Amino acid sequence: MSPDKKPTAAQQARLDARDGILGPTRGVALGFVQCNLVILRQELAYEFLLYCQRNQKACPVLEVCDAGDPEPRRIAPGADLRTDLSRYAVYKNGVRGKDRDDISDLWEDDHVAFLIGSGITFDEALDRAGVPTDQHRWVLRTTVPTEPAGRFHGNLVVTMRWLTPAQALTATQVSARFPFNHGAPVHVGDPAQIGADLNQPVYGDPVGDLPPDLVPVFWACGVTPQAAAESATIDLMITHAPAHGFISDLRADEFCTP
Amino acid sequence: MSPDKKPTAAQQARLDARDGILGPTRGVALGFVQCNLVILRQELAYEFLLYCQRNQKACPVLEVCDAGDPEPRRIAPGADLRTDLSRYAVYKNGVRGKDRDDISDLWEDDHVAFLIGSGITFDEALDRAGVPTDQHRWVLRTTVPTEPAGRFHGNLVVTMRWLTPAQALTATQVSARFPFNHGAPVHVGDPAQIGADLNQPVYGDPVGDLPPDLVPVFWACGVTPQAAAESATIDLMITHAPAHGFISDLRADEFCTP
Repeated sequence: MSPDKKPTAAQQARLDARDGILGPTRGVALGFVQCNLVILRQELAYEFLLYCQRNQKACPVLEVCDAGDPEPRRIAPGADLRTDLSRYAVYKNGVRGKDRDDISDLWEDDHVAFLIGSGITFDEALDRAGVPTDQHRWVLRTTVPTEPAGRFHGNLVVTMRWLTPAQALTATQVSARFPFNHGAPVHVGDPAQIGADLNQPVYGDPVGDLPPDLVPVFWACGVTPQAAAESATIDLMITHAPAHGFISDLRADEFCTP
Repeated sequence: MSPDKKPTAAQQARLDARDGILGPTRGVALGFVQCNLVILRQELAYEFLLYCQRNQKACPVLEVCDAGDPEPRRIAPGADLRTDLSRYAVYKNGVRGKDRDDISDLWEDDHVAFLIGSGITFDEALDRAGVPTDQHRWVLRTTVPTEPAGRFHGNLVVTMRWLTPAQALTATQVSARFPFNHGAPVHVGDPAQIGADLNQPVYGDPVGDLPPDLVPVFWACGVTPQAAAESATIDLMITHAPAHGFISDLRADEFCTP
């Protein structure tokens, strides 16, 4: 952006991340597409891109940077993926180490950055449609296998929301408009049918009992590729930390009509 | 399929292609997703998959087979991509040679087959909605550059239809439901705004004059990756011959809700 021009909310959020003053990104820069980040070595790039193609609902790829290039030139020109997220997770041999707020010193010439659409993107559209997004929401493992590619494999991870029947129908229609941010739900109703693990969510406390007037609705989740990358036990993988997404310049409403 | 089970229309069409009795596929096995085919050597697979990711409207990838495997196990298990299309185009160093109806003798262990969604898929949905698909339709080059990836680059190729204003609006809504088969139009109105070449369509005669009561509507076209692969002047590329697509087992209406 030119120096005399006010930054957009997305640009400002990235600058705040660079300055170390941005936290979790839910509710930040509403209206802009948020992304999950996966950084891998180039030798794994084809296998991972193939894994994403074979599991598009969970892994809708929005940009693949050239090897060694930390700038997502298509969806956020000028940004730097080494500094413009507020928190990073670093996996070595499949084990998550200490989180970082900057990965400049880890970046190498053979690193390839993948940006993958996040379901946070349609939260605002759900809110506008009267579907609450700030409660009754969990990230759960399932027993549904993803389609493997090379070293990448694993089970689908889902986002579950508890909604009224009317909200479930509205949420299905609204999210279907965002096919590159996980799109419509993958399941509705009985969690056991997809083997959703209610006792050990990926984050937070056990789910507990479903109120009798609500119905569980499940979306493919952007944590799926992280789980696949973990199960591949590769030497180094860097991702966004959960709930600390990368904010792109894509407009959610513009992008929702592919 | 088991021997005592009647083949689906898609399976029958593939068997007919194998037997050499299938011609062009427009109107064949209606309701099943049709695909464009691109076969390349493995060394080019990552660059081409990246090219498709960067140009998703023109190149929506539905399956990438493993190297050396001619069976699309996910979208048409049991099929053989060396025999189950009715006609193939073979490019050597970017020059198209004689068409084939079988490529078994050209297939090598390092060949990777890509299946890419075709706009033919939503013809039936357009017909059902009262939008004619059998006339006023051309494939045109434009001056809109695609996003390059490695050796692959070139301009967008579009399908143009002449429609009444009401049909144009209906066709936009109907095709938007098929984001993995090119989705909604990329342009409506003045062909000059995208540099569409009306004098030399990719196939057939010059377009001629637009009737005053019709409006041109333009979709990203599955010929785009062929044009890109041609401009990359790679040693060997095999594709479907125009209008002779691969018919998958995917149901168009099921698949349209991603």
